[in-house]
Amino acid sequence: METTHSESGTPELAEPHLRQLLGAAGLAVEYVRAEGNTLYLRGDDGEEIPVADFAGGYGSVLLGHHHPDIVRCARELLDAGTPVHAQFSRHPYANRLAAELNQIVHRELGTDEPYFAIFANTGAEAVEAAVKHAEMDRVMRLADLRGELAAAVESTRRAVDAGDAVVPERLRARFGIMGTLDDAAAFRELAAHIEPLNGARLDRRPLFLALEGGFHGKLGLSVQLTHNESYRAPFRGLAAQARFVPRESPEALREIHERERGVVLAFTVSGGQVDVVEREFPVFCAFLVEPIQGEGGVHVLSPEFAGEIQRFCAEIDCPIVVDEIQSGMGRTGTLLASSPLGLRGDYYTLAKTLGGGIAKTSAMLVRQARYRPEFEIVHSSTFAKDSFSCVIALKVLELLEADDGAVYRTARERGAALRAVLDGVRADFPEQVREIRGEGLMLGMEFHDQSGAASASVRELAATGLFGYFLAGHLLREHRVRTFPTASALNTLRFEPSVRLTDAELALLDDGLRDLCRALAAGDGERLVGRAAVAG
Amino acid sequence: METTHSESGTPELAEPHLRQLLGAAGLAVEYVRAEGNTLYLRGDDGEEIPVADFAGGYGSVLLGHHHPDIVRCARELLDAGTPVHAQFSRHPYANRLAAELNQIVHRELGTDEPYFAIFANTGAEAVEAAVKHAEMDRVMRLADLRGELAAAVESTRRAVDAGDAVVPERLRARFGIMGTLDDAAAFRELAAHIEPLNGARLDRRPLFLALEGGFHGKLGLSVQLTHNESYRAPFRGLAAQARFVPRESPEALREIHERERGVVLAFTVSGGQVDVVEREFPVFCAFLVEPIQGEGGVHVLSPEFAGEIQRFCAEIDCPIVVDEIQSGMGRTGTLLASSPLGLRGDYYTLAKTLGGGIAKTSAMLVRQARYRPEFEIVHSSTFAKDSFSCVIALKVLELLEADDGAVYRTARERGAALRAVLDGVRADFPEQVREIRGEGLMLGMEFHDQSGAASASVRELAATGLFGYFLAGHLLREHRVRTFPTASALNTLRFEPSVRLTDAELALLDDGLRDLCRALAAGDGERLVGRAAVAG
Repeated sequence: METTHSESGTPELAEPHLRQLLGAAGLAVEYVRAEGNTLYLRGDDGEEIPVADFAGGYGSVLLGHHHPDIVRCARELLDAGTPVHAQFSRHPYANRLAAELNQIVHRELGTDEPYFAIFANTGAEAVEAAVKHAEMDRVMRLADLRGELAAAVESTRRAVDAGDAVVPERLRARFGIMGTLDDAAAFRELAAHIEPLNGARLDRRPLFLALEGGFHGKLGLSVQLTHNESYRAPFRGLAAQARFVPRESPEALREIHERERGVVLAFTVSGGQVDVVEREFPVFCAFLVEPIQGEGGVHVLSPEFAGEIQRFCAEIDCPIVVDEIQSGMGRTGTLLASSPLGLRGDYYTLAKTLGGGIAKTSAMLVRQARYRPEFEIVHSSTFAKDSFSCVIALKVLELLEADDGAVYRTARERGAALRAVLDGVRADFPEQVREIRGEGLMLGMEFHDQSGAASASVRELAATGLFGYFLAGHLLREHRVRTFPTASALNTLRFEPSVRLTDAELALLDDGLRDLCRALAAGDGERLVGRAAVAG
Repeated sequence: METTHSESGTPELAEPHLRQLLGAAGLAVEYVRAEGNTLYLRGDDGEEIPVADFAGGYGSVLLGHHHPDIVRCARELLDAGTPVHAQFSRHPYANRLAAELNQIVHRELGTDEPYFAIFANTGAEAVEAAVKHAEMDRVMRLADLRGELAAAVESTRRAVDAGDAVVPERLRARFGIMGTLDDAAAFRELAAHIEPLNGARLDRRPLFLALEGGFHGKLGLSVQLTHNESYRAPFRGLAAQARFVPRESPEALREIHERERGVVLAFTVSGGQVDVVEREFPVFCAFLVEPIQGEGGVHVLSPEFAGEIQRFCAEIDCPIVVDEIQSGMGRTGTLLASSPLGLRGDYYTLAKTLGGGIAKTSAMLVRQARYRPEFEIVHSSTFAKDSFSCVIALKVLELLEADDGAVYRTARERGAALRAVLDGVRADFPEQVREIRGEGLMLGMEFHDQSGAASASVRELAATGLFGYFLAGHLLREHRVRTFPTASALNTLRFEPSVRLTDAELALLDDGLRDLCRALAAGDGERLVGRAAVAG
């Protein structure tokens, strides 16, 4: 790649290609200030130009940009010289945070089973931690199984040697053991055949289950759990694979299990005869589920399919990782968007708003029944579990829970108001808008595919592969509204504003979306892209 | 795991097992304030008790805890409401940061080839990004190779069909093609044999090279590049594997390459005859190297072995990822600890002090010759590239570079003073201290293995597997000195203080280490562990 230079003469070395694409869509603006639900641009005359923020840091600023209590909390921590780097010491703030999270989770799930907390720095890191923990647990369960299999070989051998059990003809025939061998020799041959077979099967690499359209991060491992082919495929060689389950398709679940399940052969003695029975072992390390898919187009998991997943995972003893990184932290009116679905996770991941829009922090929760304390010794992070992040996260929880959950209620109320705007636009432009989806302050507006539009300019727009980004560019340029398409479903615009969303901002959005739909209806692709192409 | 409760009655849900271990070693203290090179405990009478910090956030606070200029910078960003969450917009601060890093890197490496910057949030995330980029590059190079192989098949086929080339007997014999077939049919059979063979070989999963003792993080993929078996083994099924090269062993490098190299068969036509030649393809995705191993016991890479690695990687076209997460950012007197070694990385990772001890940020640099702009589209992070982190990182670089590099000089001078203390202790206690290693403010003191000590109590201490942690507990309890063993070499204590290290703190350390050595010499394991066991 050749180097380019910015207007100030600095070489562009921080993602210049992305910058060009943003420029082409009219999105390469610089924000100079943020407050509440508003980001500010600097106009040519030096004046601040407000932009209503419906992108909301992909879910990171539910409480608004620079919430005064959170900024105050951050300032106090800095003023007090509270240690940020005090690894391997007591972290009572981390413990308080874990306890607070437990209290809310217990209330929402109606359980009192403790969830142990492992802190990380980003959502993707929390997913990596959850998956590492699940794999450690799986490997430890496999070790137990290996032990049981070996013990069964040993006890069976003793029974055969003592003359208490025989190796029946049926079993000899099944495994090709000569009938002329005595029982002791026949058993030894049988065991010599079965033990390496079991060993090879148990050495199989783990598989993951995840939903089509799911997004769980882009680190080396988590990116393989993210469905979007373009994010995932180049890195396929790097990590264990997932099998992706179509949304709302319990049959597919069963099919994948049937195809991929693993069994080992275990010895038993029954009625004086040696027998070999099949035992399923855990091939599936974890099932990753977002209650609402953020990047996949804002699709809400149905309570029915959530129930199917829960039953299926219980049957095959596969832990469920509920990824609440984008949906959680109160955005839908509860801390966990999954709790009203009746879904009970073995693991939860939380991030984004957990850091209050300032700190970078995330948490991975593991229920007690699955928890492996050994994990605390093998997993760690220099930056995680620090006082700065933990104390800010405690402040976030305090704000969520204050006034008997006023923020949750506001999220529902503002969400309903936003939904009314989106529904209204769809009612008036059914040819342009296909569907409105989501819960609370996590909503999506899917546009009809325009690749077969009558207008050549609209068809061209669709053919860029950046359709939603051009729509977002138009909204920003013409209406001072900031939103983006969901990253893996570019026909869907996302709306994840803060609870500080005002009616005036909703009116701006209403105007903007109607203007957008009118331009699409008129086939005016030039208008949607035109000025942007020049600005880029 | 059963739940326990803290003194305040809060259930302990944030790593209680680790907390118990720290308690056993006498390390479970709470730090309430940090300033310069000092962390403060709160005494029973409410007074602050200073502790000299030689752990330094594992290298995160080279400039000291809460450097006033960095705290001021953070406050100003908060006061100004500078947007933290403004993803997918212009980030001129990120670009300035990339340019500043380039300027210093260019000076140290004596090159002007640009390095493109991808920002992340933690050191481990930067490693994941580097490895993802290297794999994307490898997959793209493989795609080019596939294209070349297919083109060679096609052009050879045309030459044979036109009668311009024959399939000689030698080649038929080698691949078992019947002599009775005509050339066109023989070539088709040959191609049908070789093409799937090549395809299967090229589909092989990538391998990594890394050094024994190396540490590159603990995320799903990076943990497989970290040599420590206990961190890595439980998660082996999750990610691509590394081959670990013994330090200072060029022969091992060649052996691993010989054993693992991959070749495909390519068609050529020469002198009217079809031939098949071997071509090596990139199996090795990257070679990860720390110039000074932080967790592995503070081992410094020699310029000679650095040169061997450089030549070897050039020969097999394998990119070098220089992991400067712990060693870099000025700690050894240069931004890159590797630059005085003459090592030239294709990739660099930087973190820790880059965030100034307050922000969580990291950078991955890729040289232009290797850079794939497509990476900007497939890789991203909600929290990365934010103004808060980037502006603080710019301030860190400004402080490093100020007064013609005064911080680098101080790191060297304070490092020499620290080294003198450590060398002095070793000279007086050669039976206890085996070796002092490191550069600048990144030093390690290796103790002799005590598992065969004359004293039963010292032998017991060694047998806990936590030897270095007990030494650290003694230093903290008795001398108010904070340090830790290196995590993968528990007989080595680490010293990574800030440039604000005072002579008084060095005197404390000197006293502490001598006391420690005297206790070891006296076989007084009770004293090293005694009170700690009660305090736990």
